[in-house]
Amino acid sequence: MTKATPQRKDYIYFHTMTSRWRDNDVYAHVNNAVFYEYVDTVVNHWLIVEAGLSVPATDMIGLVVRSECDFFGPLAFPGSVEGGLAVARIGTSSVTYDVGLFAQSGAEAAARAAFTHVYVDAVSRRPQPLPDWLRAKLETLIPAT
Amino acid sequence: MTKATPQRKDYIYFHTMTSRWRDNDVYAHVNNAVFYEYVDTVVNHWLIVEAGLSVPATDMIGLVVRSECDFFGPLAFPGSVEGGLAVARIGTSSVTYDVGLFAQSGAEAAARAAFTHVYVDAVSRRPQPLPDWLRAKLETLIPAT
Amino acid sequence: MTKATPQRKDYIYFHTMTSRWRDNDVYAHVNNAVFYEYVDTVVNHWLIVEAGLSVPATDMIGLVVRSECDFFGPLAFPGSVEGGLAVARIGTSSVTYDVGLFAQSGAEAAARAAFTHVYVDAVSRRPQPLPDWLRAKLETLIPAT
Amino acid sequence: MTKATPQRKDYIYFHTMTSRWRDNDVYAHVNNAVFYEYVDTVVNHWLIVEAGLSVPATDMIGLVVRSECDFFGPLAFPGSVEGGLAVARIGTSSVTYDVGLFAQSGAEAAARAAFTHVYVDAVSRRPQPLPDWLRAKLETLIPAT
Repeated sequence: MTKATPQRKDYIYFHTMTSRWRDNDVYAHVNNAVFYEYVDTVVNHWLIVEAGLSVPATDMIGLVVRSECDFFGPLAFPGSVEGGLAVARIGTSSVTYDVGLFAQSGAEAAARAAFTHVYVDAVSRRPQPLPDWLRAKLETLIPAT
Repeated sequence: MTKATPQRKDYIYFHTMTSRWRDNDVYAHVNNAVFYEYVDTVVNHWLIVEAGLSVPATDMIGLVVRSECDFFGPLAFPGSVEGGLAVARIGTSSVTYDVGLFAQSGAEAAARAAFTHVYVDAVSRRPQPLPDWLRAKLETLIPAT
Repeated sequence: MTKATPQRKDYIYFHTMTSRWRDNDVYAHVNNAVFYEYVDTVVNHWLIVEAGLSVPATDMIGLVVRSECDFFGPLAFPGSVEGGLAVARIGTSSVTYDVGLFAQSGAEAAARAAFTHVYVDAVSRRPQPLPDWLRAKLETLIPAT
Repeated sequence: MTKATPQRKDYIYFHTMTSRWRDNDVYAHVNNAVFYEYVDTVVNHWLIVEAGLSVPATDMIGLVVRSECDFFGPLAFPGSVEGGLAVARIGTSSVTYDVGLFAQSGAEAAARAAFTHVYVDAVSRRPQPLPDWLRAKLETLIPAT
């Protein structure tokens, strides 16, 4: 994952979120853990609203096995947060998303995260191949090169 | 505080918020404590963006001394939450807000909260009279009867 | 609900929680909405660990229909928060808990909350009578008078 | 950072935290973003309680510039979470912590995070060398090899 600060053009799907009073820490900026709430929300918003995933699922669920984030600048309340979404890698059972978080007026991302789901059987918790319908949807989030 | 389910016409200022994946509990509805994050956010959004309050303040701060909420229906992720704001009572040092939370498509409130700030000196923490500029702003949120 | 600041002797069950860096707001005290996370946690900890409630439940669930809190003093990170629990009222389908939140070294409560669950059928969402086993457990939380 | 699941012996300082009802998501496990609240709390608890850092600071503050986490197993409410802390790397202005999160009864970590602070001047936000007193404290968290 390159450390270059991403821009809006690097993303395919966008979901705009609103910050909350509680998001700010003692330094009046959004706490670092809250960035992951935004990341999680962008991914799940796309999965449920765009890809049609049913949650809670009864057969197969996506477990987060790894996440990481580089923080380039602050986010704050009041203010909205624009989340950009792309897919960085699709594996047999897993998908890694690339998420950029942008302040309302910012051209460059305040943060860039990678976020990996592994799909497992809801009961056995063993990895399962991504279903074809989801793989096809995920491929629409791969940036043109 | 009446238990009648409030409607959008009962409020004067509105701030639309977005729910988050993390807001949902095991029953796939927004957790009750999160409703207070929304309430807090509506009040502080108005105070900072509309009334011009500086936060963090150096001389006088608003402490929450009481809050309450009646829950009429669920909110959920995904979905936006519209917060309606009015002022129920202005005292010498305190103000009680009336906040209604509405699901995106809901005519009736999912919840109604009362939320009381007492303004205190930032150092001594003793109550201070509301400054005239803030009292004047708060009066614009009193519903016509 | 009396406004007298409660003491530890007013409660029957205690659950000690730890505050988090993220709980503090710009004034370096625990945000008001987080107090309700503590309240929620005390009640559910008792229900699951002491009363043996299965969560997520498949037949009957407790919905929060009302909560309220009086704030008497600050809580902060770092520090632990002791939650005291009693039952204020048992109805046909509902129970109202009385929860006191105490700072580690505090004799008097930093906050006192009332928190009402109504038990409903998990599918129809219509109120159901409290099962006898739960009613019997709840009665052990009623303070002697 | 090796992917081997860490054990308690890999850490030098421990802070035990309690999970909350709100931490659980629709699958009745702690949400991934909440793991970062735990990580943040372990680091700041040590900084404030053990190293004597004043927060909010007036001259120099630690900004999170990068964090990452591998998730090996679930955490849940009810239950406590033991956080183990070590220092992985000390730079001129920065420090990277290694944090392991353990379920109450777990011998192996449920998650392992890396968390990097850069110390900056509170006004100019430009990196500053770590003060000697803090560097000396941080060195006590470097594991023997």
